[in-house]
Amino acid sequence: MTRVRMNLFTSLDGYTPANPTPHDPMGGDWGRLTETYGATRTFREKVFGETSGAGTTGVDDRYAVAFFEGVGSEIMGAGMFGLHAFPEDPDWKGWWGDMPSFGTPVYVLTHTAPRPSIPMEAGTTFHFRSTVIEDVLAEAVEAAGDLDVRVGGGYSTARDFLRAGLVDDLHLTVAPIFLGRGNRLWDDLRAFELTYQVTTEVAESGTIHLTLTR
Amino acid sequence: MTRVRMNLFTSLDGYTPANPTPHDPMGGDWGRLTETYGATRTFREKVFGETSGAGTTGVDDRYAVAFFEGVGSEIMGAGMFGLHAFPEDPDWKGWWGDMPSFGTPVYVLTHTAPRPSIPMEAGTTFHFRSTVIEDVLAEAVEAAGDLDVRVGGGYSTARDFLRAGLVDDLHLTVAPIFLGRGNRLWDDLRAFELTYQVTTEVAESGTIHLTLTR
Repeated sequence: MTRVRMNLFTSLDGYTPANPTPHDPMGGDWGRLTETYGATRTFREKVFGETSGAGTTGVDDRYAVAFFEGVGSEIMGAGMFGLHAFPEDPDWKGWWGDMPSFGTPVYVLTHTAPRPSIPMEAGTTFHFRSTVIEDVLAEAVEAAGDLDVRVGGGYSTARDFLRAGLVDDLHLTVAPIFLGRGNRLWDDLRAFELTYQVTTEVAESGTIHLTLTR
Repeated sequence: MTRVRMNLFTSLDGYTPANPTPHDPMGGDWGRLTETYGATRTFREKVFGETSGAGTTGVDDRYAVAFFEGVGSEIMGAGMFGLHAFPEDPDWKGWWGDMPSFGTPVYVLTHTAPRPSIPMEAGTTFHFRSTVIEDVLAEAVEAAGDLDVRVGGGYSTARDFLRAGLVDDLHLTVAPIFLGRGNRLWDDLRAFELTYQVTTEVAESGTIHLTLTR
């Protein structure tokens, strides 16, 4: 049975960093927010291709392993794909090089005229959709087969899916830091956790992991 | 050596509830936020006078025990004492009855003309001060002897002390809930945690405890 899952990173004051640009160093906040995730053995292997086995192997890594398992299709917003950064480039293929690590169909939500799908190496194909999120989700569920659909972000896409009640499993990585700026993840989401089972856990690194499941 | 300590309750989205009034049921948020604290054996004994030994005895209770230990004086804002709710009543003596559980001098910060001190039973005396918080703190430190000064709240007093860098030990109880309304505890406090050692722990109840110590 396909489930819709999402992973979010936030600070203790409920911010997720705004997208970094060369003129806006806020990107440094991403580094602080995801520091312990980036230090895991699984992240270093999956994203950086490290084969040395270096990296942490505790609670943080357990969540990193789960992140990469069992995803059959992905949904992301136009900003995450890069359409806002490069709106005039019809050949833009995302930030992930020729061989993105998704390995699945990826549905990019866009309000502009849909582009042709872009097949990449190693199983990733980017599709562009401008219909309502429920319709895109239905297509992603179909494509996922027996696996899950992951809603990858960015923050406004994540909020759209949470507010629409479309997420079955939310994993929240909370860094014990106070960013004080960025995008406010939780506005207008009062008490949304009440429809979920909530568990909390602290990793050896001090990072807080919450899982909201229904 | 006297330390300045503070305990705060917050939701995962960084809110502390606004003060409840008969016309504003937001007070229900306090109940959700402090539910696991109120369930501890220590809270039930110290605040409700229960002698049955009922209540939780795990991680939450360990923090409740620490809350009541070693405080030699207390500072609170006018709102927490009730001066905003009852500005016209010169005989107002706070919300805590004839025998407040503080058992220490309590310094109430006020911008209005200071009132005479009010001695209560069992060691509590309320003093009213309209000087800058650094001066009130110096007096409270003197009064505390070898014990600690606790900054009790409310939220604007807590924020004033945090922004002024006057807090040595902050215990933060984070309920895994999203209030979505109330007072925003962390505005303008970006990265204040960097001057502290931060530890995180999850109680059996799922409540998250952070300690910031320097």
